[in-house]
Amino acid sequence: MPPNTLISSKDLISYRKEMACHILLFALLALASSRVMASDPSQLQDFCVADLKSPTDDIFFSGLDMPGNTSNQLGSKVMQVNVNQIAGLNTLGISLARIDYAPYGLNPPHTHPRATEILTVLEGTLYVGFVTSNTNNGNLIFTKMLKKGDVFVFPEGLIHFQFNYGPTPAVAVAALSSQNLGVITIANAVFGSNPPISDAVLAKAFQVGKDTIKYLQAQFWVDNN
Amino acid sequence: MPPNTLISSKDLISYRKEMACHILLFALLALASSRVMASDPSQLQDFCVADLKSPTDDIFFSGLDMPGNTSNQLGSKVMQVNVNQIAGLNTLGISLARIDYAPYGLNPPHTHPRATEILTVLEGTLYVGFVTSNTNNGNLIFTKMLKKGDVFVFPEGLIHFQFNYGPTPAVAVAALSSQNLGVITIANAVFGSNPPISDAVLAKAFQVGKDTIKYLQAQFWVDNN
Amino acid sequence: MPPNTLISSKDLISYRKEMACHILLFALLALASSRVMASDPSQLQDFCVADLKSPTDDIFFSGLDMPGNTSNQLGSKVMQVNVNQIAGLNTLGISLARIDYAPYGLNPPHTHPRATEILTVLEGTLYVGFVTSNTNNGNLIFTKMLKKGDVFVFPEGLIHFQFNYGPTPAVAVAALSSQNLGVITIANAVFGSNPPISDAVLAKAFQVGKDTIKYLQAQFWVDNN
Amino acid sequence: MPPNTLISSKDLISYRKEMACHILLFALLALASSRVMASDPSQLQDFCVADLKSPTDDIFFSGLDMPGNTSNQLGSKVMQVNVNQIAGLNTLGISLARIDYAPYGLNPPHTHPRATEILTVLEGTLYVGFVTSNTNNGNLIFTKMLKKGDVFVFPEGLIHFQFNYGPTPAVAVAALSSQNLGVITIANAVFGSNPPISDAVLAKAFQVGKDTIKYLQAQFWVDNN
Amino acid sequence: MPPNTLISSKDLISYRKEMACHILLFALLALASSRVMASDPSQLQDFCVADLKSPTDDIFFSGLDMPGNTSNQLGSKVMQVNVNQIAGLNTLGISLARIDYAPYGLNPPHTHPRATEILTVLEGTLYVGFVTSNTNNGNLIFTKMLKKGDVFVFPEGLIHFQFNYGPTPAVAVAALSSQNLGVITIANAVFGSNPPISDAVLAKAFQVGKDTIKYLQAQFWVDNN
Amino acid sequence: MPPNTLISSKDLISYRKEMACHILLFALLALASSRVMASDPSQLQDFCVADLKSPTDDIFFSGLDMPGNTSNQLGSKVMQVNVNQIAGLNTLGISLARIDYAPYGLNPPHTHPRATEILTVLEGTLYVGFVTSNTNNGNLIFTKMLKKGDVFVFPEGLIHFQFNYGPTPAVAVAALSSQNLGVITIANAVFGSNPPISDAVLAKAFQVGKDTIKYLQAQFWVDNN
Repeated sequence: MPPNTLISSKDLISYRKEMACHILLFALLALASSRVMASDPSQLQDFCVADLKSPTDDIFFSGLDMPGNTSNQLGSKVMQVNVNQIAGLNTLGISLARIDYAPYGLNPPHTHPRATEILTVLEGTLYVGFVTSNTNNGNLIFTKMLKKGDVFVFPEGLIHFQFNYGPTPAVAVAALSSQNLGVITIANAVFGSNPPISDAVLAKAFQVGKDTIKYLQAQFWVDNN
Repeated sequence: MPPNTLISSKDLISYRKEMACHILLFALLALASSRVMASDPSQLQDFCVADLKSPTDDIFFSGLDMPGNTSNQLGSKVMQVNVNQIAGLNTLGISLARIDYAPYGLNPPHTHPRATEILTVLEGTLYVGFVTSNTNNGNLIFTKMLKKGDVFVFPEGLIHFQFNYGPTPAVAVAALSSQNLGVITIANAVFGSNPPISDAVLAKAFQVGKDTIKYLQAQFWVDNN
Repeated sequence: MPPNTLISSKDLISYRKEMACHILLFALLALASSRVMASDPSQLQDFCVADLKSPTDDIFFSGLDMPGNTSNQLGSKVMQVNVNQIAGLNTLGISLARIDYAPYGLNPPHTHPRATEILTVLEGTLYVGFVTSNTNNGNLIFTKMLKKGDVFVFPEGLIHFQFNYGPTPAVAVAALSSQNLGVITIANAVFGSNPPISDAVLAKAFQVGKDTIKYLQAQFWVDNN
Repeated sequence: MPPNTLISSKDLISYRKEMACHILLFALLALASSRVMASDPSQLQDFCVADLKSPTDDIFFSGLDMPGNTSNQLGSKVMQVNVNQIAGLNTLGISLARIDYAPYGLNPPHTHPRATEILTVLEGTLYVGFVTSNTNNGNLIFTKMLKKGDVFVFPEGLIHFQFNYGPTPAVAVAALSSQNLGVITIANAVFGSNPPISDAVLAKAFQVGKDTIKYLQAQFWVDNN
Repeated sequence: MPPNTLISSKDLISYRKEMACHILLFALLALASSRVMASDPSQLQDFCVADLKSPTDDIFFSGLDMPGNTSNQLGSKVMQVNVNQIAGLNTLGISLARIDYAPYGLNPPHTHPRATEILTVLEGTLYVGFVTSNTNNGNLIFTKMLKKGDVFVFPEGLIHFQFNYGPTPAVAVAALSSQNLGVITIANAVFGSNPPISDAVLAKAFQVGKDTIKYLQAQFWVDNN
Repeated sequence: MPPNTLISSKDLISYRKEMACHILLFALLALASSRVMASDPSQLQDFCVADLKSPTDDIFFSGLDMPGNTSNQLGSKVMQVNVNQIAGLNTLGISLARIDYAPYGLNPPHTHPRATEILTVLEGTLYVGFVTSNTNNGNLIFTKMLKKGDVFVFPEGLIHFQFNYGPTPAVAVAALSSQNLGVITIANAVFGSNPPISDAVLAKAFQVGKDTIKYLQAQFWVDNN
């Protein structure tokens, strides 16, 4: 309907009927980068699309063959294909990402608070690893050198990274067990939060002087997502 | 311990203690192709590996860069990378597959009873589609022509297919929202089950004569998985 | 409120407060036959009814003792009692159906993408079966002749059917583990979709000529639900 | 293998491989009436049967057409058909019950801690009801007079009952959203527990004298399940 | 925006975009004491707050150090801190309660239909217990005398109580595995519902005369929550 | 049975019957500090105890009133009360912790990969905060000064901390929405893993020189859990 038309309560009732199917879609489309409230346990219908006339727009994404721009301090770029890009993924519990690595590029230590990741190397080689949670034996690290065609699992919530040791670019595709995985880059969240975490907290946590903390906080934190 | 050593109840008690962590792993490793009882809702530990000395063996798979052998009647081959290939995926709710398509190859209409699929075209082009469940308007079909880099979603439980219309091979990678998705190829399950479904049932279901059913049942059913 | 009354932002705020409880109910009541977005994992309140003055209307259904009209090509009729009939089932994860079978009537091979079914024979006898997913040994079929008082389980997502071999009518009641199970009748979805699946796809999938496919597609597909 | 044969560690290893699939089945078959540890969220395989040679035994039950013996103080009898009767229901999240009511028979106030119930009247009439949890307005009761063919929902965890007011027997079938619902008959659990709840607790809880509590505790509590 | 301003469809569109995040929050804030429809399975975003300018208001509660007023017939008071008090708990699956007990105070037999409770004694001593569901051996009761620092678990849905046998006040804190646990006080729901349960039902259920039922129903039922 | 008695296959069968209930309990009791495979979605029975003769041992814990020893570099100590301490919590989705803070003590930035935390201050004051995942606006931090009786929520998977700014000890109790939450102390996992993360990775991730990384790695990492 045209903008600025006054609406009647009858329209509102009609609107209410239309709206129910769209509620979560609006959330996802309009508020994609902020705190979206949605719910996603088990599918209660085939799927949910915004526009019944061209439904495939909501279950389709194009361009995952295009290399990401890795010209940043980390030398890596993540292209997410989650519910923010494909609204029809809502309630379906899965998403994708393509990750490009420049030579010596790093996808730095990070966690996904809501997803396990299974990564496949499409091009190049990657040194990958994750660290387990606190145990009697300390935080164990599991690493592996991956080549093209190798697949590796990063369990939900654990700190993990991928590093392109070699002189040629690398590409990986990651599948994630959530429509909206979340990314917490450790360096950014700990030393680059807005506003900063108190240096008293960080100095004690990392058991170094406040000058070291301030030095770390002074870096410019790239978000490669 | 050496084989054929008699065991004592003390050993058994000791064995019981060791065994608990391994129960589901044994299920997966030993009985991978039969009816494994396992459970997989939410992660209760970082992950579970069989051999603590080389844990990464259970979270790693190699060879997804190798083309599958598409020399069959369908002209397609699916290489599954699920909990049967990567035991560490147990409870993590995700798996992968690589699908190769010969020219004019088909991944025929099938369902995954326990997973949504998100497919990415790595090489070539694919004509893909799925059919919704019964509705007032009939079983609607949604199709799309995909090219390299395109991503498409097949919602859980719906009948779907991919067809390589073109004269060049195609390759896709699929992520699936279950550690053990299940595949039901419609033609195989309906016309190629073991033993066959009664032709009286099928003739009435498909509203054709028993001769047509027998003709369909006489085909040789390839399982491209 | 009367239709066509202009509403104020104050009304809108008031409306917003009223609306929250009703969101999913509106979805279910108004859009019952289309793509409803709802969510259903675990109960967060006792239950949810639309009209607090006569709440039992939303947790009640009448008429399951009435035989369905089986005068169709399949000789069967399914009367669903799910969240579309009983709105209060929302989030409760269960629904019912009554199925009537004329003599020699068939509930044809179909799947429920979101539910396991447990069927009880109330009258007559039924030949029932389901087919497992693809395995090393092919798609195994499990069948049983059921008489009055017999109970049989059709696991989630598997293709299954019931056939009334006998000369007398049969009646069954089915319980299903979802508020909105979904029904995919195989014949209808594969050969009767709207628009049809490409005959090139189906001919290759069923490994027969396009004429056989066109013959199958030319049948008139009854939805007995 | 024959009983009383000594087993070797090799046998034990072999046994371990066989055992994994059977673990939960053994739990269910052998310990059906005690505290079985099992897990049941989402299906990870088609289904799980104990004996691959006659699998349908585990997904089948016979006799739900037989009236229960209502010759007890309550005049009612519940015949459960859950995972204890049909082992194949394990992980499938659903079960059944048949309930017989003598004239003036009562299925007394009880809760199911793990299931919603949807009840259908097959014969006769029933006065049914449930009470909501504590609210600002007190514990609201919702009741309805049901006749043959009527369906009513008792939401998970709420206290509910069915009463056959009339002079003729009644029969109902109930579907429940759990493989193992649990039954807590209020009178039995509160006044007939083993050993009894302290009369000091009950006198204060029900705000009556200890003599009234002792009178209540002196009744003989029938479990009609 | 000011009240009573007419709104345009453009405003409505804008409103729709704002609204999606707030839907469930409105439900919780405005309708806290009635039948709120919400959904809560797994977190799909970090968290959801109503006011982005002061988000911590929705994840914060003050006053759990203040003793509850136990001047009632039960001598106990429960202060709930669930999603009705902390809106940000929505979808997070956890809540708290502080319970104060006067000397000889009782938190009477009750169930939580949607939560397990883990209780810690902060001050004083408590006699606690729960009753299992119906079993072959009757409804078993498990009790324990708890002192300061003791922790006890009440499994989901089971009838349980805490009694302060001693002459000094007691205090406990309870954690519950649901954002909105539900409380069903047995005495209140069975003998104090609104309107009352039929005395014919209760007399038969408790196997006593209607006069005893009427006597019980005549008590004044305190809700200590 | 006495140790070192040879067992027969008959015993083994008997053992198998007993064992099913105990499987997960053995896992928890015997392997509490290693990689236990267990499963925990929804309760399928009242609860599960190891010893039917003294079942309350498995649902009880004593000593949460005892201050933890905070004589370490962080000045804090966490006493977990989860499924490793109370085996009966298995499948119940909840656990507790007591946290003691020396003056100026810190519970350093950490995540719980499988739980939301709701913290209550019992004594003293605490400065608490958490950082959101990566957003368009950076990693936002939410902090609050808490006093006795204040309650604060740390959503699942987010980095959070508590700091006792004041000169007097502080005590808090935390409830967590998992039977086995997991703790990842950021400093320990990133700079103190075993073996260490490559300094090339860390230098690039934190955008500082390898000397700074080596300095950080040279600290002695306390696990205060």
